[in-house]
Amino acid sequence: MGASGYSGEELVRLLLRHPQVELTAITSRQYAGQTLAGVFPKFAHFPQAAALCFCEPNAERLAQLAQIVFLALPHGVAVEFAAPLLRLGCRVIDLSADFRLRNAERYQEFYGQEHPAPDLLERAVYGLPEVYREAVKKASLVASPGCYPTSILLPLLPLVRDGLIRTDDVIADSLSGVSGAGRKAELEYLFVECNESVRPYGVPKHRHLSEIEQELSLAAGKPVIIQFTPHLIPVNRGILTTLYLTPEPPARETAAQARFMEQVAHAYRSVYANEPFVRMLEGKALPDTKNVVGTNLIEFAWRLDPRTGRLLVMSAIDNIVKGASGQAVQSLNLMCGFAESTGLL
Amino acid sequence: MGASGYSGEELVRLLLRHPQVELTAITSRQYAGQTLAGVFPKFAHFPQAAALCFCEPNAERLAQLAQIVFLALPHGVAVEFAAPLLRLGCRVIDLSADFRLRNAERYQEFYGQEHPAPDLLERAVYGLPEVYREAVKKASLVASPGCYPTSILLPLLPLVRDGLIRTDDVIADSLSGVSGAGRKAELEYLFVECNESVRPYGVPKHRHLSEIEQELSLAAGKPVIIQFTPHLIPVNRGILTTLYLTPEPPARETAAQARFMEQVAHAYRSVYANEPFVRMLEGKALPDTKNVVGTNLIEFAWRLDPRTGRLLVMSAIDNIVKGASGQAVQSLNLMCGFAESTGLL
Amino acid sequence: MGASGYSGEELVRLLLRHPQVELTAITSRQYAGQTLAGVFPKFAHFPQAAALCFCEPNAERLAQLAQIVFLALPHGVAVEFAAPLLRLGCRVIDLSADFRLRNAERYQEFYGQEHPAPDLLERAVYGLPEVYREAVKKASLVASPGCYPTSILLPLLPLVRDGLIRTDDVIADSLSGVSGAGRKAELEYLFVECNESVRPYGVPKHRHLSEIEQELSLAAGKPVIIQFTPHLIPVNRGILTTLYLTPEPPARETAAQARFMEQVAHAYRSVYANEPFVRMLEGKALPDTKNVVGTNLIEFAWRLDPRTGRLLVMSAIDNIVKGASGQAVQSLNLMCGFAESTGLL
Amino acid sequence: MGASGYSGEELVRLLLRHPQVELTAITSRQYAGQTLAGVFPKFAHFPQAAALCFCEPNAERLAQLAQIVFLALPHGVAVEFAAPLLRLGCRVIDLSADFRLRNAERYQEFYGQEHPAPDLLERAVYGLPEVYREAVKKASLVASPGCYPTSILLPLLPLVRDGLIRTDDVIADSLSGVSGAGRKAELEYLFVECNESVRPYGVPKHRHLSEIEQELSLAAGKPVIIQFTPHLIPVNRGILTTLYLTPEPPARETAAQARFMEQVAHAYRSVYANEPFVRMLEGKALPDTKNVVGTNLIEFAWRLDPRTGRLLVMSAIDNIVKGASGQAVQSLNLMCGFAESTGLL
Repeated sequence: MGASGYSGEELVRLLLRHPQVELTAITSRQYAGQTLAGVFPKFAHFPQAAALCFCEPNAERLAQLAQIVFLALPHGVAVEFAAPLLRLGCRVIDLSADFRLRNAERYQEFYGQEHPAPDLLERAVYGLPEVYREAVKKASLVASPGCYPTSILLPLLPLVRDGLIRTDDVIADSLSGVSGAGRKAELEYLFVECNESVRPYGVPKHRHLSEIEQELSLAAGKPVIIQFTPHLIPVNRGILTTLYLTPEPPARETAAQARFMEQVAHAYRSVYANEPFVRMLEGKALPDTKNVVGTNLIEFAWRLDPRTGRLLVMSAIDNIVKGASGQAVQSLNLMCGFAESTGLL
Repeated sequence: MGASGYSGEELVRLLLRHPQVELTAITSRQYAGQTLAGVFPKFAHFPQAAALCFCEPNAERLAQLAQIVFLALPHGVAVEFAAPLLRLGCRVIDLSADFRLRNAERYQEFYGQEHPAPDLLERAVYGLPEVYREAVKKASLVASPGCYPTSILLPLLPLVRDGLIRTDDVIADSLSGVSGAGRKAELEYLFVECNESVRPYGVPKHRHLSEIEQELSLAAGKPVIIQFTPHLIPVNRGILTTLYLTPEPPARETAAQARFMEQVAHAYRSVYANEPFVRMLEGKALPDTKNVVGTNLIEFAWRLDPRTGRLLVMSAIDNIVKGASGQAVQSLNLMCGFAESTGLL
Repeated sequence: MGASGYSGEELVRLLLRHPQVELTAITSRQYAGQTLAGVFPKFAHFPQAAALCFCEPNAERLAQLAQIVFLALPHGVAVEFAAPLLRLGCRVIDLSADFRLRNAERYQEFYGQEHPAPDLLERAVYGLPEVYREAVKKASLVASPGCYPTSILLPLLPLVRDGLIRTDDVIADSLSGVSGAGRKAELEYLFVECNESVRPYGVPKHRHLSEIEQELSLAAGKPVIIQFTPHLIPVNRGILTTLYLTPEPPARETAAQARFMEQVAHAYRSVYANEPFVRMLEGKALPDTKNVVGTNLIEFAWRLDPRTGRLLVMSAIDNIVKGASGQAVQSLNLMCGFAESTGLL
Repeated sequence: MGASGYSGEELVRLLLRHPQVELTAITSRQYAGQTLAGVFPKFAHFPQAAALCFCEPNAERLAQLAQIVFLALPHGVAVEFAAPLLRLGCRVIDLSADFRLRNAERYQEFYGQEHPAPDLLERAVYGLPEVYREAVKKASLVASPGCYPTSILLPLLPLVRDGLIRTDDVIADSLSGVSGAGRKAELEYLFVECNESVRPYGVPKHRHLSEIEQELSLAAGKPVIIQFTPHLIPVNRGILTTLYLTPEPPARETAAQARFMEQVAHAYRSVYANEPFVRMLEGKALPDTKNVVGTNLIEFAWRLDPRTGRLLVMSAIDNIVKGASGQAVQSLNLMCGFAESTGLL
């Protein structure tokens, strides 16, 4: 549902190429009645694209056509369709923010409206497979994480879980490509306004903080509040995050720093060594969005600054793939018992 | 001298348009003997460009032709020409790093070679006019600041001077356009390698730290070490810096935060209210490199995050103008008694 | 009038910096009541920008405030203001298409509406100073040319006038930056839709054909129809045009080709040798938009292909400066008796 | 062989993902001894990438390791390896220009050196599967076409074969992304030199003319010479070609034009209706490189200009996929009896 935005379009691309999926319906109010090939000539070479028509969003109809429904709808709209779809027996993978928070008050604080279906919140699984793999497999409702949270949580959670860093001194500085703003006709996202431009935005309380801090708090066993600053940069896709962290206890001397770095490497390797979509850069390389764009991978590197004693962790993802549609398909694979990387390599 | 790099080229453009300057010589080993109009057709419509030839670098010759010499040469090379030029009576504005540090050991630590003329260091004035205006006016040797330092020091110094922030907890996260790397034929700066790419580099000890920390230490009256991470982003020009700062004393409650913000505004206004090239964004606007590219301005905004108690300061400059050639011309104007913004608006 | 589009904004920038102009009023329905500095922080360092407010468009009011009025309004709207402004004694420089055509039927054919003030058409002077300099000086109504026409006519007219090429075999292939589409919130001009994209559009009958063919026909003394294909490319500014032309008579042999090229060079030099904003590239260089962006120059080069006998002429301009606002200021300078390049170098 | 350039790298990506291919060796003088994962972290998640090492180019060694060898080497170098590899029993797919021309003199004219193995020329098959499918299947030596030729020949050949256009009046105006220049550390391909720049180059006799005219001449049954102008535009990938053609006989009246357009549509449909990688845009859509980048498709549209009687055909490809590596894999699939689109969707 909602196949005409950037995440929806990428989802369609991934599902058309997925060897074990049959894409049976796509919805879009704007394009209802038109074929996929007509609206997106870029898909015209897929045999299904000539036959598949966009239809109006209708839960009953979709429940007859599909076992699993992806919601690539705005927050506040997704929730309206999730409830009936679940009732009708579909499993739902929601790419919006509607089911990412366990706490309805937190939703209201950050999204400015009462949550319309708070009872569904506890049923939802936060769709970060590297963290909630087993729960995703059995989930009927997956809340696929936001793009910034994915880029921040994957490199941060192992350190928080192992108690290696101070949780009251976390800074996440993120740079996002323009597709993150969605396919919306607004002046500030025109080519001329974004090209040859770099700017911060949403300072200081971006909505994604709610899910980031929720997951960090769960990992830490205590409330965590962090600093997070997003910036808009002139690329189509990609998020680069730089994390500024403080070792706990402080690591001032060379020996303590070396020991700390061993612990960090161990924390990462022990959880990510066999993850198909996590690339730890342990040599000299630093992350670069161009190495992950178009893939479902996150890559990250870490450095200790001997002069300040701070730990820097830098990560890169494709905001539309690992940060949205690819990660949603990763959850689909888990839910259906397919190999986790099916259709994603 | 060194008119074929990006800073040199911009300097030529500024000087050709400067109503009180006569550009009498330009040097370039690579282009010696060719006319300016021939090498840079973009300058061909300036009457002087057809007659002006690039010449070999030669201090004696230049001293006969000019009263003031700009050095847009690599560090380590600039110093070789500065000494004879000064001896021959020229005033010198150096855009390299050779005279920015007061301490020769510090130079060696960060630039990896012994300083060849340490006696000249105390004669040099750090060419940040907003800080050293009076000294620049009388200087015979101006060390024009680096691009990152300019974007960091201007918004940071007033806070440090007034003791408003902790100097042991300063993080500067900077994003630079590719011209910052210079006109060098290296694979990593090819269009295809930079376009659709965002990446950190030089982590964790970038050379510009040396001058940033020198100036902060002078302002603080004690040694200051900061965290600084540069990133490369796909724009031709522009630096965006985000500073993460901690109020001193901490400002946790609303009232304390409001008071702190008044002090910050006061600190800024009292030094920058009448600066021709400093734009404080006091409304809702946040800085954007596209608003300063092609100008000698720095614009910056600041926000206190009530949830973390941290102060965020965000600045934008054109790395080649305010971050290099424009600032050098600003110094020239001061040295010659011209109105400070002559040729720069 | 209409100071919030890309041409209007550039016009404001040029007029603020113009040493002989006082900008007394700017209009914008959208921003009426707000200051220039507030809407465009990038102008905040000009002293006038804090005081100057956008006002509602009102001919009477403007006639009291100004001697010359620029119209940077959509076609069809400009004409509504031109008539009363002229009646009230203002001289008008119109950047829209409303007065570029001498023939009202031709306007209707290409712009799809009846011309509301056909009597004004003969009063208007086509504001291409290199062609109509004397008429511009005395004009009360200047119709400033379109961007594509400027890039095509300047290199083409001398050849047509001298009868050097066949006028029934002219192909103009043009590439334009996205600012040419104006500051309009439309999906197809979003960053993500334009970046990493190249596409033709408006095939085969673009509106600019009407003025191009009018001027070519006048120069040829007979009706001329040409082929013109615009393309959209991911740069902010710039138009590159490649003209495919056939010598008349055909130049098949080496000697004839050499003679023809002498005639071409002579045709160009005799009209453009002393033009301040025309740069003929007579060496090996080919035009590049980056050499003219931000300037009021057109640069062009020409080559004869010995294998096909065709003449190629390639030109580059900044679509917003020489293609719009700069050229309008050039007309202003002529109308007021200022040096033609005042405020434009 | 030659796996470190842009085509080589894309070839590696396609072959790693190809379900029926085992990539057994990669060569690179520069990276010999290093692993694929080490040199290109972007491939590190492929299991083979950790084990596969770049080796020195050595025909004997490769002949032991592989049945089919791709040459992604510069012209003049490819030929040195093709001969021994063929002798040793390998089948060779060459992405360089070394075997594209049937005539050794023509090679010398355009490539400036004598062809070192003219006897191999007649053995080579020009690897445009849509034209030479049956020959490719049986070929031992495939000369994969250049990027511009692919974008020009596929939409042009059916018209030439059917005698629908004049072959002495063909103009091809092409726009290419910067990857077309290869991964070479040259000043003119630096980010800052290409970004915000558009420029023609290689005027008027680009090397690709040799193979374009060879294939057109074969289709026409007589010598064909065309006009071809390449331009460099700031995108990583993509070629957009605009062809200006003249109907034969001329189609001046409406009825004749309608009839001509039916013939054109018929010519295209009869050869391309079932081609997996050819997308004819028959509705309102015009080609856009962003719709083909990352795919092996060519898309094209055509329009008759009723005012001039000319036919415009516009095509878009990814220069590195359909214009190089993808097309080479398409040939591989044919040579090995795999489904033609294996690994390419």
